[in-house]
Amino acid sequence: MNKGLEGVVAAETRLSMVDGERGELVIAGYPVDELAPHATFEEVVWLLWNGDLPDEESLERFRSELAVRRAIAPATLELLRECAKADLDAMDALRMAAGTISLTAHGDEQLALVAQFPTIVAAYWRLLHDRPPITPNPTLPHAANFLYMLRGAPPPAAEVRALETYLNTVVDHGLNASTFTARVITSTGSDLVSAITGAIGALKGPLHGGAPGPALNMVFEIGDVSRAEEVLRRKIESGERLMGFGHRVYKVRDPRASVLSDAAERMFAEGGDRHLYELARGVERIALRLLEEYKPGRRLQTNVEFYTALVLHGIGIEVPLFTPTFAISRVAGWIAHCLEQRRENRLIRPQSVYVGDYRTSKIR
Amino acid sequence: MNKGLEGVVAAETRLSMVDGERGELVIAGYPVDELAPHATFEEVVWLLWNGDLPDEESLERFRSELAVRRAIAPATLELLRECAKADLDAMDALRMAAGTISLTAHGDEQLALVAQFPTIVAAYWRLLHDRPPITPNPTLPHAANFLYMLRGAPPPAAEVRALETYLNTVVDHGLNASTFTARVITSTGSDLVSAITGAIGALKGPLHGGAPGPALNMVFEIGDVSRAEEVLRRKIESGERLMGFGHRVYKVRDPRASVLSDAAERMFAEGGDRHLYELARGVERIALRLLEEYKPGRRLQTNVEFYTALVLHGIGIEVPLFTPTFAISRVAGWIAHCLEQRRENRLIRPQSVYVGDYRTSKIR
Repeated sequence: MNKGLEGVVAAETRLSMVDGERGELVIAGYPVDELAPHATFEEVVWLLWNGDLPDEESLERFRSELAVRRAIAPATLELLRECAKADLDAMDALRMAAGTISLTAHGDEQLALVAQFPTIVAAYWRLLHDRPPITPNPTLPHAANFLYMLRGAPPPAAEVRALETYLNTVVDHGLNASTFTARVITSTGSDLVSAITGAIGALKGPLHGGAPGPALNMVFEIGDVSRAEEVLRRKIESGERLMGFGHRVYKVRDPRASVLSDAAERMFAEGGDRHLYELARGVERIALRLLEEYKPGRRLQTNVEFYTALVLHGIGIEVPLFTPTFAISRVAGWIAHCLEQRRENRLIRPQSVYVGDYRTSKIR
Repeated sequence: MNKGLEGVVAAETRLSMVDGERGELVIAGYPVDELAPHATFEEVVWLLWNGDLPDEESLERFRSELAVRRAIAPATLELLRECAKADLDAMDALRMAAGTISLTAHGDEQLALVAQFPTIVAAYWRLLHDRPPITPNPTLPHAANFLYMLRGAPPPAAEVRALETYLNTVVDHGLNASTFTARVITSTGSDLVSAITGAIGALKGPLHGGAPGPALNMVFEIGDVSRAEEVLRRKIESGERLMGFGHRVYKVRDPRASVLSDAAERMFAEGGDRHLYELARGVERIALRLLEEYKPGRRLQTNVEFYTALVLHGIGIEVPLFTPTFAISRVAGWIAHCLEQRRENRLIRPQSVYVGDYRTSKIR
């Protein structure tokens, strides 16, 4: 019996390679630190879906094919209003709204899903705060338009670049639970919207993508780097887990953390809350030293959640939107996996072992 | 690499035991042929959720807890209207509508999901045919109320019994793809509605629950038992697969087929299209003889789809509602698996192996 399916290889993929021992992440052939900081999100989506980076003409056409599909249906918006009235978690609202893409997409679900995720998330966030949703601007690139729809103002280039680097960094990561969910659903011969709706539900779970907030809460709680050592020692000695450090797969520094750390450094150099950045770096430095002191050999490293929180906070994206923003990126990876699953499909159906009773009594 | 995860044991369960070699199916301790024809659906749901059949008082309370939760929210009904306008597949409509249960359920998702599936399916079917949805009748049991909401008239007892036997028969079946989907989503710590929404998407796939119609089409095509041998020989000799025969797991007669065959016999004895029943039995007899003649040793047997089609058709449920009716039953099994997964949870996260390129070119 293998409850978590650890070590069980359930798919071959050309989409990403995760090497936790060496701290490497390759996305469709490119090391994440080469790809993420330099490419646009549209280029990375194209790469995942087509196996190579687009030429200029293909990229231009792809940008426009996405841009014209950003508007959400009136029924989708109406459902988001109901979600806002019920004060639902943004991931539940995204799950419901994304599921309605079947109403209007007819064969272009693949593009519509990627195009509409930012519109859904931004519209929901504004409705939740009693502000009217903002119509997507088709002249802006994908990442810039998301920030525009959140704020109603064109975002500074440094923030767009930081967001784009984040989206590129988390776009795919092997057979994580949400990607695996999408592949299991696809393996039955079901449709893309069904697969993606299931994947959103999986990503929501706190053991997967659903708990990226607490990493920065600790930094806020510490407040000043001069207090870091005292607070961190107290936490470690009382057995508390330090949020933002350690990962089930990576035994050296998560390569995504490095990319996002650099992205944060560049963004905060041009603006934003420079104090917060210095504080976070200071807390990280002291936390790593103390973790090595208290748990030698455990190789606990800063993980992707720590720098995700710093980058997204720096851009002005609030904690309840961290996981939905993750989904805005990952949906492109999910779709790529669905397409890959379809190409050489086999129904994914493991077995269970029965450990219950055998009754001999009659029903009546 | 094990793409289909065949033979990989991913869970222990007390919910059902499938023995394909011996043709046995045990549901929470009871052989399906003992449980399904005699219990009410409410009793079987209680059994799956609590590990034992309810006493009279518990059953009465449970019936009423379900009955008071049958009404769907106005927003859910509105969404179903949109689905009907777009002429969507009933499984897509069910997926979307079930996903909106998060809007109104607060802690009672488990009951609300089971209670509202029949209301959603019946309302959608009527909207699709320009007829107004019928308000659920809380005095009727679960199965009877579903037929009442489809037709607007109280159903005959023989049809209710046949439907109830069908619902009990298909309520759980090991780690099939939709149940596995629900468990993967649950394993991330996500919520019940997310898990069930994902499972609906998986059940829709034609390799899972999504193609139960064709079994009876062959019977209709044959039309008269005197033509059966000629038509069936032609089909087998031209390499066509006979729908309704053979199963990936069962190598002897699917025990569910026996239960449903008996249920059909009892129902058609009291009414319905007796000619169709005799025809189907005749076609089955000849098909089995010919399959043994042409494919000796392959042990191809009548499968559950064949008798599902006969029973549901006999009750007057049309082909596009076969899979949604399956879901009305299976949702209880899905939920039982989610609860079981939660009790001893471990994140389900298999691995992939990277077979793509490693590029050395710079991005720019």
